[in-house]
Amino acid sequence: MANYVYTLAKRRQTVRRFTSRPVDGNKVITAVKTACQAPSGANAQPWRFVMVTDPTIKRSIRKACEDGERAFYATVSGEWRTWLLARGFNWSKPFLEEAPLLLLVFSQENAPYASQSVWLAIGYLLLAIEERGLGTVTYTPSSTQGALDEIDVPEDWKLEVILPIGFPTEEHTKEPRLSLDEVLYINSWEHGQDVQK
Amino acid sequence: MANYVYTLAKRRQTVRRFTSRPVDGNKVITAVKTACQAPSGANAQPWRFVMVTDPTIKRSIRKACEDGERAFYATVSGEWRTWLLARGFNWSKPFLEEAPLLLLVFSQENAPYASQSVWLAIGYLLLAIEERGLGTVTYTPSSTQGALDEIDVPEDWKLEVILPIGFPTEEHTKEPRLSLDEVLYINSWEHGQDVQK
Repeated sequence: MANYVYTLAKRRQTVRRFTSRPVDGNKVITAVKTACQAPSGANAQPWRFVMVTDPTIKRSIRKACEDGERAFYATVSGEWRTWLLARGFNWSKPFLEEAPLLLLVFSQENAPYASQSVWLAIGYLLLAIEERGLGTVTYTPSSTQGALDEIDVPEDWKLEVILPIGFPTEEHTKEPRLSLDEVLYINSWEHGQDVQK
Repeated sequence: MANYVYTLAKRRQTVRRFTSRPVDGNKVITAVKTACQAPSGANAQPWRFVMVTDPTIKRSIRKACEDGERAFYATVSGEWRTWLLARGFNWSKPFLEEAPLLLLVFSQENAPYASQSVWLAIGYLLLAIEERGLGTVTYTPSSTQGALDEIDVPEDWKLEVILPIGFPTEEHTKEPRLSLDEVLYINSWEHGQDVQK
């Protein structure tokens, strides 16, 4: 128990392919309740969540996102392009339709530290989703043009992420992580000062 | 067990006053290891952590941060000012010296979705810190001018947060949260479409 959060975090891996097995909405609601316990700038709680289960809306979101991705993939360059292509990524985002449920997370643009607060809460969300045995990917659309047409989002709310939620089709491989020596320093940004970790 | 993450998230509250009881650095290292398991844009892991235990460095950080806060409090206005003053907040940040340990979290400015990835990882960190029985506050300095002088931070790394970590002096009150109805919608941003939660 002492390292339960670490165990969950280590076990969790990004899921991009989902089975059609339905998702119990209550599990996602518990994850949202968990996220809502996160701290936020001036306690503004600058987050809102829209759970999309309607297949017609999922299809519209997929189409609009894929239009944006086509434009993005036509222009992305450098290391990021290499990274994406090496993994077989492209404009196609079938998970937006295949996952039984999409959770859209919004931030209120004028709240203090809005984006930071919402992404901190997304960290809570991911661990709660993992704990429920569900998988997801933090999908950040290249463009949200058209994607939100059917959801009636007020003007001052910005889409931060779409989390498609469901059961994975297969075991995925977790991307490797840097070693602790490479990311943690003691008292100064000097490898020479590293203590035994 | 099924709702352990929710229980931790709900129990956690912001701590701004710390006892002098020492903090076992290994507990903080476990929390950092947890954060490092978070997903990140292109798996860039655009985070670095500097653990500060040296009293001289803590004192310098406090002084520089308080200088920045004095300037901030002279200009902040509107709802945020009201919120801050109602809670007795001001430029003084004794927790930067009182907490036995400061954990500084940095993001690599040029990585894709760097800030979002780092704040997601900070969500992991907070839950791991709570699990270890320690307290913290996500302190975002108004200015970092001078605060990093003794740490030799490379140019392309940005300070996102300082987490003073220690044991609370007393029970703190958790800020109230919005109800689920106020933050979660189903299929459309319309209260009329809320399902039973």
